[in-house]
Amino acid sequence: MVRSDGRNDDVLRDIRITRGYQTWPAGSVLIEFGNTRVLCAASVTEGVPRWRSGSGLGWVTAEYAMLPSATHSRSDRESVKGRIGGRTHEISRLIGRSLRACIDLAALGENTIVIDCDVIQADGGTRTAAITGAYVALADAVTYLGAAGRLADPSPLSCAVSAVSVGVVDGRVRLDLPYEEDSRAEVDMNVVATDAGTLIEVQGTGEGATFARSTLDRMLDVALQGCAELNRIQAEALSAPYPGVLPEPKSGGRR
Amino acid sequence: MVRSDGRNDDVLRDIRITRGYQTWPAGSVLIEFGNTRVLCAASVTEGVPRWRSGSGLGWVTAEYAMLPSATHSRSDRESVKGRIGGRTHEISRLIGRSLRACIDLAALGENTIVIDCDVIQADGGTRTAAITGAYVALADAVTYLGAAGRLADPSPLSCAVSAVSVGVVDGRVRLDLPYEEDSRAEVDMNVVATDAGTLIEVQGTGEGATFARSTLDRMLDVALQGCAELNRIQAEALSAPYPGVLPEPKSGGRR
Amino acid sequence: MVRSDGRNDDVLRDIRITRGYQTWPAGSVLIEFGNTRVLCAASVTEGVPRWRSGSGLGWVTAEYAMLPSATHSRSDRESVKGRIGGRTHEISRLIGRSLRACIDLAALGENTIVIDCDVIQADGGTRTAAITGAYVALADAVTYLGAAGRLADPSPLSCAVSAVSVGVVDGRVRLDLPYEEDSRAEVDMNVVATDAGTLIEVQGTGEGATFARSTLDRMLDVALQGCAELNRIQAEALSAPYPGVLPEPKSGGRR
Amino acid sequence: MVRSDGRNDDVLRDIRITRGYQTWPAGSVLIEFGNTRVLCAASVTEGVPRWRSGSGLGWVTAEYAMLPSATHSRSDRESVKGRIGGRTHEISRLIGRSLRACIDLAALGENTIVIDCDVIQADGGTRTAAITGAYVALADAVTYLGAAGRLADPSPLSCAVSAVSVGVVDGRVRLDLPYEEDSRAEVDMNVVATDAGTLIEVQGTGEGATFARSTLDRMLDVALQGCAELNRIQAEALSAPYPGVLPEPKSGGRR
Amino acid sequence: MVRSDGRNDDVLRDIRITRGYQTWPAGSVLIEFGNTRVLCAASVTEGVPRWRSGSGLGWVTAEYAMLPSATHSRSDRESVKGRIGGRTHEISRLIGRSLRACIDLAALGENTIVIDCDVIQADGGTRTAAITGAYVALADAVTYLGAAGRLADPSPLSCAVSAVSVGVVDGRVRLDLPYEEDSRAEVDMNVVATDAGTLIEVQGTGEGATFARSTLDRMLDVALQGCAELNRIQAEALSAPYPGVLPEPKSGGRR
Amino acid sequence: MVRSDGRNDDVLRDIRITRGYQTWPAGSVLIEFGNTRVLCAASVTEGVPRWRSGSGLGWVTAEYAMLPSATHSRSDRESVKGRIGGRTHEISRLIGRSLRACIDLAALGENTIVIDCDVIQADGGTRTAAITGAYVALADAVTYLGAAGRLADPSPLSCAVSAVSVGVVDGRVRLDLPYEEDSRAEVDMNVVATDAGTLIEVQGTGEGATFARSTLDRMLDVALQGCAELNRIQAEALSAPYPGVLPEPKSGGRR
Repeated sequence: MVRSDGRNDDVLRDIRITRGYQTWPAGSVLIEFGNTRVLCAASVTEGVPRWRSGSGLGWVTAEYAMLPSATHSRSDRESVKGRIGGRTHEISRLIGRSLRACIDLAALGENTIVIDCDVIQADGGTRTAAITGAYVALADAVTYLGAAGRLADPSPLSCAVSAVSVGVVDGRVRLDLPYEEDSRAEVDMNVVATDAGTLIEVQGTGEGATFARSTLDRMLDVALQGCAELNRIQAEALSAPYPGVLPEPKSGGRR
Repeated sequence: MVRSDGRNDDVLRDIRITRGYQTWPAGSVLIEFGNTRVLCAASVTEGVPRWRSGSGLGWVTAEYAMLPSATHSRSDRESVKGRIGGRTHEISRLIGRSLRACIDLAALGENTIVIDCDVIQADGGTRTAAITGAYVALADAVTYLGAAGRLADPSPLSCAVSAVSVGVVDGRVRLDLPYEEDSRAEVDMNVVATDAGTLIEVQGTGEGATFARSTLDRMLDVALQGCAELNRIQAEALSAPYPGVLPEPKSGGRR
Repeated sequence: MVRSDGRNDDVLRDIRITRGYQTWPAGSVLIEFGNTRVLCAASVTEGVPRWRSGSGLGWVTAEYAMLPSATHSRSDRESVKGRIGGRTHEISRLIGRSLRACIDLAALGENTIVIDCDVIQADGGTRTAAITGAYVALADAVTYLGAAGRLADPSPLSCAVSAVSVGVVDGRVRLDLPYEEDSRAEVDMNVVATDAGTLIEVQGTGEGATFARSTLDRMLDVALQGCAELNRIQAEALSAPYPGVLPEPKSGGRR
Repeated sequence: MVRSDGRNDDVLRDIRITRGYQTWPAGSVLIEFGNTRVLCAASVTEGVPRWRSGSGLGWVTAEYAMLPSATHSRSDRESVKGRIGGRTHEISRLIGRSLRACIDLAALGENTIVIDCDVIQADGGTRTAAITGAYVALADAVTYLGAAGRLADPSPLSCAVSAVSVGVVDGRVRLDLPYEEDSRAEVDMNVVATDAGTLIEVQGTGEGATFARSTLDRMLDVALQGCAELNRIQAEALSAPYPGVLPEPKSGGRR
Repeated sequence: MVRSDGRNDDVLRDIRITRGYQTWPAGSVLIEFGNTRVLCAASVTEGVPRWRSGSGLGWVTAEYAMLPSATHSRSDRESVKGRIGGRTHEISRLIGRSLRACIDLAALGENTIVIDCDVIQADGGTRTAAITGAYVALADAVTYLGAAGRLADPSPLSCAVSAVSVGVVDGRVRLDLPYEEDSRAEVDMNVVATDAGTLIEVQGTGEGATFARSTLDRMLDVALQGCAELNRIQAEALSAPYPGVLPEPKSGGRR
Repeated sequence: MVRSDGRNDDVLRDIRITRGYQTWPAGSVLIEFGNTRVLCAASVTEGVPRWRSGSGLGWVTAEYAMLPSATHSRSDRESVKGRIGGRTHEISRLIGRSLRACIDLAALGENTIVIDCDVIQADGGTRTAAITGAYVALADAVTYLGAAGRLADPSPLSCAVSAVSVGVVDGRVRLDLPYEEDSRAEVDMNVVATDAGTLIEVQGTGEGATFARSTLDRMLDVALQGCAELNRIQAEALSAPYPGVLPEPKSGGRR
């Protein structure tokens, strides 16, 4: 039983990473998982939120949102509704937690990095694409802060972070589901992992169904192998030089 | 290395389930996991939300909240802030999803059951206590609807649902963490399972750390055994008769 | 003409006061007026709101809310609606005003006491039960602050405060109305009084009707006698020792 | 001890009532209690809110607000804050309740009258001025509906309604307090009464103090005499013809 | 083709300016353009918003709103809706910008002037009436600050500001449109100008139509002549003495 | 005096129009004015808002927003703030009005087109780029509806619409200002025009300054010539075939 886009069950969609997509943020990455496209921008500011001030620790947080035009049928704008929905909240928190697992906030010094993940086009897996792209934007922002001499310690990143979805569709465990598969999956799981093969977050849900422990085990196998492939693509993207102009030490200004 | 409350690593806190805690809702359960106390009330109404109307299917949803006085230091009231926080949203959605996995919405008929989970006292594990108690309240609400002759099919519940937390504390995998352990856990996981031993939801998070696949496996073992014990306690609680006055068939009125 | 619960017109429902209902707040009282149950928790914090800072005066405020499951038919959650309703606002302000009438804010020192009154079950008279219970929680919080050596003066409470409803039902003046009577009362009045027999607040309303001055006088007679009885019950409840562990002087920490 | 504006303790400020202040609403009254000026506009619409639809009953409701420039120091605009404060809510509800006590909603037929009370200048007693003026605006709106042939019954108003404040200032019971007295009153009371001498609403509050039953009695004496004088002034104002163009029967259109 | 109110195409409605309409604000002006009536109140406070603090510059801002009863059919209250609409936002910003063009904020010193423009009755041209009246209120507030010795420089106003609407109705360019014309205008333009004949703001809009450059030119001619006439009326109104009690130097207090 | 990017005063920045940027909306255009990049997506739905239903007329509306990462320093997300700012409201309304001037809503039939203009990168002129791009997206959406046989009339577009900014910088009238010029312009104007050379909207503002009528005339000359050039570029972009798959008549589905 072949997938509608011709992939084998354990194969990722085409992944593309474009660094330096925007001019102003210190890191700006367009990441594509097939037709899913997410813009991940890492903005740096001096100082930390008040509740953290004076601790010597930095802060990393994330905000996720969808353009109204990103989905099959237009979705209402959350700013117009005047409220952020539960799903948006949940994903923003997940991205922030995932990135904080790979960075030493003491080494970051009292700087704040906000990562905005805005979905330009949604075709399944937007949260996992967002995490995978956000890591690359974060790496660029760290390079920027390092060049500016604003880090407390030169290497705050302890590992790379990637994420992928996996699910049970038509009774088969499949990797990196597009919307067409995601919408009819019996089980849906998102896995966030490091390039050391360890786990940061595992979220598996039966969609109106329940699943066996053995299914969970098989999904984890497939997801971890997908994350390893994503780590390889991230590393390749980051092997090119910083895509903008780096600041002189302590020159400040950019974010 | 013994736990501060004297339990072994794989043992639940004292669990108490009080049915019929309130008078008006069709199901009302006070559940206690040690010092954590959650009031779970299942209110029934005829009809379903507009987007579902005419489908013949029922609907089950949940809302979770904390009393300001439930926590160690008083927390601000979300109604006063005018916004529901991300954590509240996330847990409400989790409870609703978990319960919908065990109920046949066609058998429920066009009825809505809203489950309010209000935390009276918080000492870790409020979301897992809420799910475990909410199932019992749901079962009572279903009994109520059945007596009233309002079910499309007499047995809409396909399984029982319970949930428990598990984590890594002081390097050891421990079950059902109180606040004192939860706040310093390296890994934190919530597992929702059925009395058939299958999984509904698995959410594991490294708290500023990452964790090995083998740790995940060990946590699942412990959690599933905890859920089985919770299922036993639920069944015992539900073996007593319905704690209120059941309606005459089609008599309506109560919720 | 006898009342549906068998009481005489000028008799209170069964009143029960449980101190120490929750573990964390400095005062936590479950008060019951028949089937009406309100949880009153007094949390203490050092310091006062900014607009009062440096005045040497303390502050006492209150927040009232209902659980959605407390009422005959489920009520929507104000946090979900994103707004506090007029009735909630009104009652919160009434409770705060009533308690501030019995406490010397200079003697309290620059401490804030927030009293959360959460209605667990509503059967008429929730605001008067809340005030009556809140006074007991406040007294416990003051004892707590005194033990901690945080009061500017050892006895900030100048009197005890209780409240009761009175109304005209079926043409008769009746005390402490349950929902069944309240919903069809022609006149409805709430009286807040001290144990010295003086008044703090009187709010009487014709419900789509008007009432004679002589009716008002009769309602006040009955209400003041009800308040005196409530003061007696409060005093008895407070004659037992503080229901938790008192702090060492200046040990701080608890709220 | 004379009052700062030279009045005796039991005398009202100068009261002025201007009907037809605005062109579009069916009733529009500017009422002045000394320097306090409130614009009361009664707008009529066919139909009633959904929850009342089909009952054959009409509906009367009120909204109270202050212009930011009405107070001694400018107050923030509630529309800009995005929330209505507790005081605003409380007064809006009081005005609506007071007016509904004097109108037969069945006689009104399925029409809605909204009364907007906007404070142009505040110098104490804005809520009592609002109620007193709102009654006159309501009477004009009823005349308007009658001329249009839209009433179910020709005389829906059963009595006139007026309101006045009374308080204890410098140890003396005084009528109709301006801001200067109100801000230092020991006891503050608002009384809403009918031209039959009966009561609609009594709200008395000790401001950080308590008061004796005998003080309450004395305040009621003074307030009821003030309301009687206000009823006389209302009647005089309403003795002039309707200040605009009355509709032809069933001509509709205006509000 | 004559206008419904008998005016020639290039003639203003009757303009009336009443200074000192309210007691507390430093400037308070009721302005009438025919049946359109706007209350413009200028309140002064010491200090400036935080983002401007320490700059030595003052600040002038404006808020525009409509009473619900001001319009032909009652409009909902923005405070009740919990949001300010786009139109309100737009006009508030326009008024503030227009006034800031005529005042030297350095000469004003670190004072803030807030101008509240509340529409009492709407019959077209409310924003242009608001700007024209707001200038007069601003001039009074400046006089007030000058008398109090609080200006950094004695003459902060560099010119007078007035505004008028102009439109194409029935194919003819007409000045100062009432609602009846405004609602069917093909082109609608608002012009803000100084008494030196220069422009501050020009906003012209085709209402579902487009318009020729030559029409724009003709509309500007008519509008500028209307503004000149308004400047004359403003000057005449301001030729009378300040309508309240001026403060002693540095006596502060009033706003 | 040469501009910092080397352009002559009356020359546009590089303009690039990419049709078919997203897959799901019926029209999706990325427009670039130099470094300013705006994504304009036109989504079609059957039916119209309730207030317009049954009129036979269609509806076109627009929503404008900025990504937080689009600006030099990160801007807060309006969905997180829970409110749309005045500037956003103002621009959304301007875009909607401008597009409605070029479309015959009767010919459109009872269809709604929502145009989302999301600024990916901001460097001055975002609202004029948005209008210019939105017209192209609208044209594609109309083509889409035509192919689906859903138009009441085959050619609802009566003209093309473009917009450009013009301002006075360093005393010189300049076209299409980048942020660096915009932020220090003395006068700022936006002109929306048709390919017939007529005007739709003119908004000119003195930024803390006033300007002569002759300056306005000169700005209009330059702006109209800029709009003509933009119309030429739009026409060229639209000369290529529709960038996606057109529906079969009445096949529906896409938006």
